[in-house]
Amino acid sequence: MTSTAATDLIFGLTRVVGLPALTEKAGAPLGAEDIAQIITEADRFCTEVLQPDALAADRAGATYANGLVKTPPTYPAAYAKWVEGGWQSLSAPEAHGGQGLPAALWTAMVELGMAADASFMLGPLLTAGAIECLVHYATPDQAAKWLPKMVSGEWTGAMCLTEPNAGSDLGVLRTRAEPLGNGKYALHGQKIFITWGEHDCTDNIVYLVLARLPDAPPGSKGISLFVATKLKEDGSRNDLRCGGIEHKLGIHGSPTCVMLFEGAEAEMVGQPNRGLNAMFAMMNNARLGVGTQGVAHGAASLRLAEAYAAERIQGGGKPIAEHPDVQRMLMEMRAVTLAGRLMALETAICVDRHALFGDTAAQARQALLTPILKAWCTDRGVETASTGVQVHGGMGFIEETGAARMLRDARIAPIYEGTNGIQAIDLVVRKVAKDGGAEMRDLLAEVKRNPDARLRAAAERMEAATALVLETQGRDAAAAESVAVPYLEAAGWLVGGWMLARAAAEDGARYGALAEFYLRRLLPRSGGRIAEIEGALAA
Amino acid sequence: MTSTAATDLIFGLTRVVGLPALTEKAGAPLGAEDIAQIITEADRFCTEVLQPDALAADRAGATYANGLVKTPPTYPAAYAKWVEGGWQSLSAPEAHGGQGLPAALWTAMVELGMAADASFMLGPLLTAGAIECLVHYATPDQAAKWLPKMVSGEWTGAMCLTEPNAGSDLGVLRTRAEPLGNGKYALHGQKIFITWGEHDCTDNIVYLVLARLPDAPPGSKGISLFVATKLKEDGSRNDLRCGGIEHKLGIHGSPTCVMLFEGAEAEMVGQPNRGLNAMFAMMNNARLGVGTQGVAHGAASLRLAEAYAAERIQGGGKPIAEHPDVQRMLMEMRAVTLAGRLMALETAICVDRHALFGDTAAQARQALLTPILKAWCTDRGVETASTGVQVHGGMGFIEETGAARMLRDARIAPIYEGTNGIQAIDLVVRKVAKDGGAEMRDLLAEVKRNPDARLRAAAERMEAATALVLETQGRDAAAAESVAVPYLEAAGWLVGGWMLARAAAEDGARYGALAEFYLRRLLPRSGGRIAEIEGALAA
Repeated sequence: MTSTAATDLIFGLTRVVGLPALTEKAGAPLGAEDIAQIITEADRFCTEVLQPDALAADRAGATYANGLVKTPPTYPAAYAKWVEGGWQSLSAPEAHGGQGLPAALWTAMVELGMAADASFMLGPLLTAGAIECLVHYATPDQAAKWLPKMVSGEWTGAMCLTEPNAGSDLGVLRTRAEPLGNGKYALHGQKIFITWGEHDCTDNIVYLVLARLPDAPPGSKGISLFVATKLKEDGSRNDLRCGGIEHKLGIHGSPTCVMLFEGAEAEMVGQPNRGLNAMFAMMNNARLGVGTQGVAHGAASLRLAEAYAAERIQGGGKPIAEHPDVQRMLMEMRAVTLAGRLMALETAICVDRHALFGDTAAQARQALLTPILKAWCTDRGVETASTGVQVHGGMGFIEETGAARMLRDARIAPIYEGTNGIQAIDLVVRKVAKDGGAEMRDLLAEVKRNPDARLRAAAERMEAATALVLETQGRDAAAAESVAVPYLEAAGWLVGGWMLARAAAEDGARYGALAEFYLRRLLPRSGGRIAEIEGALAA
Repeated sequence: MTSTAATDLIFGLTRVVGLPALTEKAGAPLGAEDIAQIITEADRFCTEVLQPDALAADRAGATYANGLVKTPPTYPAAYAKWVEGGWQSLSAPEAHGGQGLPAALWTAMVELGMAADASFMLGPLLTAGAIECLVHYATPDQAAKWLPKMVSGEWTGAMCLTEPNAGSDLGVLRTRAEPLGNGKYALHGQKIFITWGEHDCTDNIVYLVLARLPDAPPGSKGISLFVATKLKEDGSRNDLRCGGIEHKLGIHGSPTCVMLFEGAEAEMVGQPNRGLNAMFAMMNNARLGVGTQGVAHGAASLRLAEAYAAERIQGGGKPIAEHPDVQRMLMEMRAVTLAGRLMALETAICVDRHALFGDTAAQARQALLTPILKAWCTDRGVETASTGVQVHGGMGFIEETGAARMLRDARIAPIYEGTNGIQAIDLVVRKVAKDGGAEMRDLLAEVKRNPDARLRAAAERMEAATALVLETQGRDAAAAESVAVPYLEAAGWLVGGWMLARAAAEDGARYGALAEFYLRRLLPRSGGRIAEIEGALAA
């Protein structure tokens, strides 16, 4: 049986964001049936292979001893099935052994996988990020050496950016790369928070490492990108090791590693001192992945809450799902989750438009939507997971129920891949202020073409807020930063409502009630956040 | 050094809610110096005895083996100091060995204790609830047998209400009480979620147990209240035992027990079939305690976040506390925490007014404020703890930092002692609708006497929302229940702002900036929630 999430994803791809028309225009048409088949298969993999063991995997957690990491006992076999199913290759370029399918399909796969077991899915997500980086920046020789095995999933990829004193501010990182004279480098330094930095699912791991050359200028303009592999080309171990894993609030199955580079042999990728640019170029897509993860945490919480509310009898012999306040909670969870799901697809389809046709309007739209998607959907993921706990009452606090795990797991997504505060500043400074608000006004003009008067009014209020924030940004950057989060939130609640209204317009029987619930009860949150901005900036 | 929380509590008790005048009128005057001395001592106990070991206690957790529960290793000695300091007796009646001090002082103690170590403080909080119940319902003989040892803290109390199928709906509980012929009863049944139901801090435990007599009518009118003690009067073990403890999201140091009553000898307390009434009579005060717990989780999170933000350098060599968005997060945490703190004192002082002078207006005000306090402050506790995690960035997700523990611990408070959904229905149905909105209008009239125009406007909007919800309640109870949560939230944001404005009026130098932040940025959330109600109920 296809899950609700999969049904919505098929609908969203086919009828809301227009994947069939896009692929037809690109000469590799994917019809509604093709999309349904791929998503249904992905759904089956996630619900049959990953989901049943996810809670046990959380309980077992990743473990560390003597430089080695064991993932939860079920992961190596599940990962082998991931590789066997060819899932890693879904949207990777055909030139490197991939299937070359649209990013929007990969986004759907990320949601389904994250909802089934986020700890597991982080491995493939990080590998996909590493693949994308190498596709753009590796030489043909480098690409041939690394990419086919990464695309197949035979090797995983890990991104090594953060250091103890360099998190949001990568400019101060200290890892050194010493030239070895033969075109290679030796890496020395410590990286922290390295997701899937060491594990027992593959023999080899490809590390993308930010480090400084000996003569590099200080700050962010002196950082270069290197690749080191766990096993060197001759099969011997490289001089790098895992120094330990973190004891975290959630995603216990995903090893978060301290990685020690002790003279590891590495190659430079891309130009010297241009490493941060390579990372930034990848960042929009990585943030799309994490925003989608936020949607997935909500979706997984909703699945548990719906099942519990249908079965739990309290008060007059009725299942609690029939109590008005529980209905409210479930409706809110459904409406927010669907809004985020469609927002992720809308952003992903921009990636495809730009990749396939060099569509710069789509690129600008993606740039605008990405911080909104990343922050709004991950904050909603935490809220939705918390509401899911609440639906369970006392049982929600008991780990065996699974609802608590969703909240623990969801809590990382607003933090990593750029904190949500950084997303909001990115939106205000690098997206809205940079073009004087033009792209935001374009988006709002599109929203205002929707027939729903509530949406149009909310879009108008957002236009006024945009003007206010722009004016403030020009005069007092700190004041603008201090309202960046409510500004992003206001945009998120609006775009979410717009996505639902579009879904309802396509299929009112299925989505009309949910859209109406959102427009009545949740869209006002956009105006509420704008009231906070106005209050903050009032004379 | 006195903590910020203690300083605020002394100020709140002395200058906002008027404890000196109240106690003077009662003939047992407590001056500002007396209050400061008690709170400073309480603060010292909490920060010196409880707080240093709290994170290790969370890590160790309570453990269960063969019917016995071990609390974290530091708890028995800390509990002995709790008893030695006489803290349990603070507000217990002098007739039973207590100090007879106001409930408002006990509320301050609860906040400080919960902020230091919520898992520990739950033991004393539950004991206080049991004491209060017995003071009202036990016969003089029963009181003499149990109360002095509970008031001293030599024995703890546990409330045994919930059963696997009887949580929010206690009417369906099944535990049986069979008369033994000698005026005593034998209890048979299973109770779950029993906080501190078994532990190693005292020899004896007093259980207040809801059960049915053989001839009891079905439903909530057939429930009686019994007391069973772990050790019988002759010192032998009673026939009750702990069947296991729960594996929970948070409050790991607090044992949450399955309690098995296997013919345990018990006495009835109060009238047959009137057990739920006895419980309901206690409920307002228990909810005051849990609302205060919500404040404490926020306060503890704030303490960690402030320390981290002052030390962590990122971006231009500045501590992150100077970044505008981090400043916003810290200010929001501070403003919400202080608002909740003062709201708890305002509610507690009503308890004292009613207890000391039989003031029925104070009783009505307490009844109105209690669900708002319980739900608004516990939801804010979760949010504030989550914001505290966010301030820490990646370190917030690492358990060693402590911020994650606060979020895990905070998450229980919106659930127990009546879920926040039940609080909202209590507010709408049993508080506002019951008197046609009279007490709410009285409260709003008081708010409207505040000189701040923003507060007055928000109170007017709340009046209109009250009329709308009342009108709906009369016509369509389910529709009213479906907006009960946003209605309670709107009231909470308004009352919080009113408390801060009153603090700022007393000491603008200390509280003016915080109140202004709240009135500009957080008070609009009251109107935002009302917009949701209006949207939901729009034709």
